[in-house]
Amino acid sequence: MELHSFFNSSTSYRVRIALALKGVPFEYVPVDIRTGEHRKEAYVAAVNPSGAVPALTEGEFSLSQSLAIVDWLDTRYPEPQLIPAEPEQRARVLELSLLISCDMHPVNNLRVLKYLDTVLKVTPEQKSEWYKHWVAEGMDGVERLLSKYGARPWCFGEQPTLADCCLVPQIANALRMGCDLDVYPTSMAVYRHAASHPAFQAAQPGRQPDFVAP
Amino acid sequence: MELHSFFNSSTSYRVRIALALKGVPFEYVPVDIRTGEHRKEAYVAAVNPSGAVPALTEGEFSLSQSLAIVDWLDTRYPEPQLIPAEPEQRARVLELSLLISCDMHPVNNLRVLKYLDTVLKVTPEQKSEWYKHWVAEGMDGVERLLSKYGARPWCFGEQPTLADCCLVPQIANALRMGCDLDVYPTSMAVYRHAASHPAFQAAQPGRQPDFVAP
Repeated sequence: MELHSFFNSSTSYRVRIALALKGVPFEYVPVDIRTGEHRKEAYVAAVNPSGAVPALTEGEFSLSQSLAIVDWLDTRYPEPQLIPAEPEQRARVLELSLLISCDMHPVNNLRVLKYLDTVLKVTPEQKSEWYKHWVAEGMDGVERLLSKYGARPWCFGEQPTLADCCLVPQIANALRMGCDLDVYPTSMAVYRHAASHPAFQAAQPGRQPDFVAP
Repeated sequence: MELHSFFNSSTSYRVRIALALKGVPFEYVPVDIRTGEHRKEAYVAAVNPSGAVPALTEGEFSLSQSLAIVDWLDTRYPEPQLIPAEPEQRARVLELSLLISCDMHPVNNLRVLKYLDTVLKVTPEQKSEWYKHWVAEGMDGVERLLSKYGARPWCFGEQPTLADCCLVPQIANALRMGCDLDVYPTSMAVYRHAASHPAFQAAQPGRQPDFVAP
């Protein structure tokens, strides 16, 4: 099994956490999205028709979209289950994961920031404000959901779930971009807890073979 | 059961299709996101802590995020199942649904277009180019995925799935915004097929009680 990944891609980071939690061995295939490797014809034809990372491949099988990959891994490698089966807990885990994956991450990912730079020619201050605005919008909701429905030490209790696989990379990115997250104590408690877990450590950008220091 | 919805919200539209396909009766609660009703304290406290539509409520239970809602409906009302159980088919349905829900819709939704207008003060032409750019990026991937893995008349064969619940509102929005989608014949074939289906018709923006003609 191969994971096509970029060290700093937070969607790749989600899948790396899931694979590490499940202890599934895989080959790391670096795809440099800064130089557009994910858009090259060979990659689009053989790995991911939608031209993005991450993608999981195994023989002829290939799958993209981090949440679809984690769902698929849950079927193939059910221990530990990252998307709970119990309907209400499942609903909460998916709700938080989708809030991060749909409403927070896409508006601030590399291709959007590049468009702001190269097409709209915004100033660095405008770009930073954009980033922080959408992080704050999303984190307000994340913090409220976790406070209302969650339980520590993870997002939803004693075991890490897909929600933690989504929250940790999102917070890591936001911290890297200089966002102030002290106003989200519940979310930050989960983040700090994850920092001491071997699977979450193994998935960190700095531990990947294609890591380049900023 | 109540669906908190805005007629022109394509994420609400997804859930309306799912409810109609399953024949689940529900009360329609209009939330005018143009005037910020989704951000009011009462709505955030009682309905959706993340302050958005759609949200499904039933007694004390409340759930947001369209894909989480459809997953939950599949457990409660399994006929017809919109997220297939068979692993490979399930993976394809989730992959396409997430491509639309994460990579296409969020970058072009109302709050982002408003930010472009009011904060970045882009021109109407720049806003239109922005919209069309992300639709083209996403639809290129959608069309390739459908051509490689799909089967007609729906996205993935003889029965509509979550993928169709996501594709149809996305295409409807793109057409409304003047995008040329003739270059995506496979996606458009699915869209035209859906147009003749009663559940897809019942979920259309023009059929909702809060509809206002443009």
